Amino acid sequence: MLKQVIAQVKNLFPAPEVHAHCDGPCGVYDPASARVTAEAVVSMTKKIQDLEAPSDDDKAAMIAYHNTLSRYIAIKEEQAQKTKEDLLILWTDYFKPVHLEKYPDLHDTFWQAAKLCSACKVEVSTQHANELMDAVQKIHDIFWATKGRDVSFVKAS
Amino acid sequence: MLKQVIAQVKNLFPAPEVHAHCDGPCGVYDPASARVTAEAVVSMTKKIQDLEAPSDDDKAAMIAYHNTLSRYIAIKEEQAQKTKEDLLILWTDYFKPVHLEKYPDLHDTFWQAAKLCSACKVEVSTQHANELMDAVQKIHDIFWATKGRDVSFVKAS
Amino acid sequence: MLKQVIAQVKNLFPAPEVHAHCDGPCGVYDPASARVTAEAVVSMTKKIQDLEAPSDDDKAAMIAYHNTLSRYIAIKEEQAQKTKEDLLILWTDYFKPVHLEKYPDLHDTFWQAAKLCSACKVEVSTQHANELMDAVQKIHDIFWATKGRDVSFVKAS
Amino acid sequence: MLKQVIAQVKNLFPAPEVHAHCDGPCGVYDPASARVTAEAVVSMTKKIQDLEAPSDDDKAAMIAYHNTLSRYIAIKEEQAQKTKEDLLILWTDYFKPVHLEKYPDLHDTFWQAAKLCSACKVEVSTQHANELMDAVQKIHDIFWATKGRDVSFVKAS
Amino acid sequence: MLKQVIAQVKNLFPAPEVHAHCDGPCGVYDPASARVTAEAVVSMTKKIQDLEAPSDDDKAAMIAYHNTLSRYIAIKEEQAQKTKEDLLILWTDYFKPVHLEKYPDLHDTFWQAAKLCSACKVEVSTQHANELMDAVQKIHDIFWATKGRDVSFVKAS
Amino acid sequence: MLKQVIAQVKNLFPAPEVHAHCDGPCGVYDPASARVTAEAVVSMTKKIQDLEAPSDDDKAAMIAYHNTLSRYIAIKEEQAQKTKEDLLILWTDYFKPVHLEKYPDLHDTFWQAAKLCSACKVEVSTQHANELMDAVQKIHDIFWATKGRDVSFVKAS
Repeated sequence: MLKQVIAQVKNLFPAPEVHAHCDGPCGVYDPASARVTAEAVVSMTKKIQDLEAPSDDDKAAMIAYHNTLSRYIAIKEEQAQKTKEDLLILWTDYFKPVHLEKYPDLHDTFWQAAKLCSACKVEVSTQHANELMDAVQKIHDIFWATKGRDVSFVKAS
Repeated sequence: MLKQVIAQVKNLFPAPEVHAHCDGPCGVYDPASARVTAEAVVSMTKKIQDLEAPSDDDKAAMIAYHNTLSRYIAIKEEQAQKTKEDLLILWTDYFKPVHLEKYPDLHDTFWQAAKLCSACKVEVSTQHANELMDAVQKIHDIFWATKGRDVSFVKAS
Repeated sequence: MLKQVIAQVKNLFPAPEVHAHCDGPCGVYDPASARVTAEAVVSMTKKIQDLEAPSDDDKAAMIAYHNTLSRYIAIKEEQAQKTKEDLLILWTDYFKPVHLEKYPDLHDTFWQAAKLCSACKVEVSTQHANELMDAVQKIHDIFWATKGRDVSFVKAS
Repeated sequence: MLKQVIAQVKNLFPAPEVHAHCDGPCGVYDPASARVTAEAVVSMTKKIQDLEAPSDDDKAAMIAYHNTLSRYIAIKEEQAQKTKEDLLILWTDYFKPVHLEKYPDLHDTFWQAAKLCSACKVEVSTQHANELMDAVQKIHDIFWATKGRDVSFVKAS
Repeated sequence: MLKQVIAQVKNLFPAPEVHAHCDGPCGVYDPASARVTAEAVVSMTKKIQDLEAPSDDDKAAMIAYHNTLSRYIAIKEEQAQKTKEDLLILWTDYFKPVHLEKYPDLHDTFWQAAKLCSACKVEVSTQHANELMDAVQKIHDIFWATKGRDVSFVKAS
Repeated sequence: MLKQVIAQVKNLFPAPEVHAHCDGPCGVYDPASARVTAEAVVSMTKKIQDLEAPSDDDKAAMIAYHNTLSRYIAIKEEQAQKTKEDLLILWTDYFKPVHLEKYPDLHDTFWQAAKLCSACKVEVSTQHANELMDAVQKIHDIFWATKGRDVSFVKAS
């Protein structure tokens, strides 16, 4: 198996003259970025639900309401998309066959997490936003375990 | 009217617990976009390999060479990235658990294809560019099979 | 070597005073990308028209409705913009004076198509979305005719 | 109220069959943005030509040289692309059939200008960068003439 | 040649410990881009306020209204964001310590202007849109004064 | 309901005349994103310096070298730009006049940090990359102090 991994890494390895003997990836990967944007998804979902529509006959208030609602929906969309992208970078670039052997449900974990990002765009659902947060934390735990480090999952809010 | 909204929301719902029994997805998905960009990756890889460096003492030619080389590398990067994004949209949004049952190596197919996109960025490799093209064709075949249609894989060049 | 560079530069040269006598462009051009996004414009236009507003007093349904409506409008906008960009790349980079001689209304064809992309953003109009689809097919036909190939216009949906 | 909406929609309507008889477009259009980016293309072209390559055996200087050269080429590319986009927005959204009647070579003016943007990407050519600047000034003149205003073409540098 | 490279690198060097004594910046900076986008913010704010909601029972008109309103809000957001980015490029890249000595409230001027960009996103406020326009004009005046040029503040509309 | 909307709008209002007395900002802000990208700048700077140029007569190696070098420079550029954007969001949106009173050199701290981001693009300098890292840590410390939380500065590598 190790040979397959080495073959894989060599295959991908871009600096022709350098031979990589370590299993330590050369890039800077950190699930913290996905955690920040997933928190924003949770926050925007709640803010959307808490908005109160004004009465139809107060035009200025109605316009302010739609301005705020539109922006919240767009920010939720953007942050869910960024979460998806950051998670998929980990899946496609950081994780390697050797990790898959240790975490056989790795593919499914990322598939579910990515689908939750999509669900958080399509819906305004506290439940799915929270499930996305849990999925990000699960990936955080797997990620740092593969690097042999104990890093806390500290939320911004 | 409420029932229509509920039906609508259910229709869109991409979360894992919903089992899609129909073959008719609501969105417009088509591996053609990924095919076009993958072809560009193959083309740019070849163009980079075919470029000839001028002699060091012809400054204008050297500058033109670096301008062309830089641009080719940047276009290869961009097109490989777009290929990756388009493939992953299919994986995360179009394919559903019911497809996974029929194609048990679906996750791995996409993982390898995505890693080939990254390899085509990192390297200037005809072999990996061609393997990416094959991976896109494999996904094209699976995709149209799930929709019960027979669509040819027609390349632009 | 200098001659090769000169040949290379000439090859790439897209400026108006160079007359391209060959039908073999060096790049990968394919109207398929514009076709896929134009189909998405048609689809989103129809989905927006089919959405039913819930009653004002069902707050959760109203929020879900606005979330869906906002997203559909944003996706329509994005896909119409991508269609426009992909068509204009063909117009500015692929088509050359020699093609203009053969298709004297080439400029107008692209102008109308680009204006239809804008119309599909500004409006929610099935008629204009369908006209955009027709315009893309017309460009598809001209494009493949200039390359002497017979490529079918296969839609995704 | 319905009448106001209809008036509003008609106002915005950019589709080809509507003849705009007024000179007062509803949007904010200004060739100044394209002028600024075209100036940047001229500037970057000159900077690239003025860069001197260090000797091969000074590694730090060689790396600094490639860092600067790569960035200059990328900035030239980006600014030429933005110029193209800004010019094409004028062509597709601001200009209407009534203007075409008055300026029969309008399509060709924009086609040439767009092709010059591409030429400035492909090459490192002072001549084509200057021709692009002239093309932008020509469009500036036509644009303000259609609005009946006398606006100077003031360059930043 | 090495000396030229060193001179070149020093020329570009934007780090804080270098005191720029010359008024001749190497780049193309021009507040015109920020002025154009700020004008668009003013325009979109007014257009949003002028929109009239149709009656609830006219579904086609209601959909057209939401399409227009959503787009106006998104364009306002985008233009305010671009204004912010263009202003901050001036602040971080063009202005140097020597300018700060002459304009001691430079930091605050940009901070207020940036916060006005955010306010114009969050709100639909003519007052703040006009204040943003004034802030851009103030920066325009400072900018051209540092270059010893007298450039008029010519609006597009 | 109108009162709620007014309260909501006031809540969001970021304009300068509103004095924020609370420490509880409504958004999700976290310097972690800027920390991750700043680490990538440090990493890419070192990787660029460590690359060894092959001999001129090994064409394949030379092409691989330029592919890698171009990509590293582009990634350094992108990550430095993202760091700048993330830091400036904190400066323009999170920090309010009340914070400025407590941290009188707040503006200068962000100005220097932003200029370091630019320096890390322009140069390949370990010293400035490390100074950027220090600047991000300083901002991390100020940020969490304003929220009364003790959050460690944990690096990914």
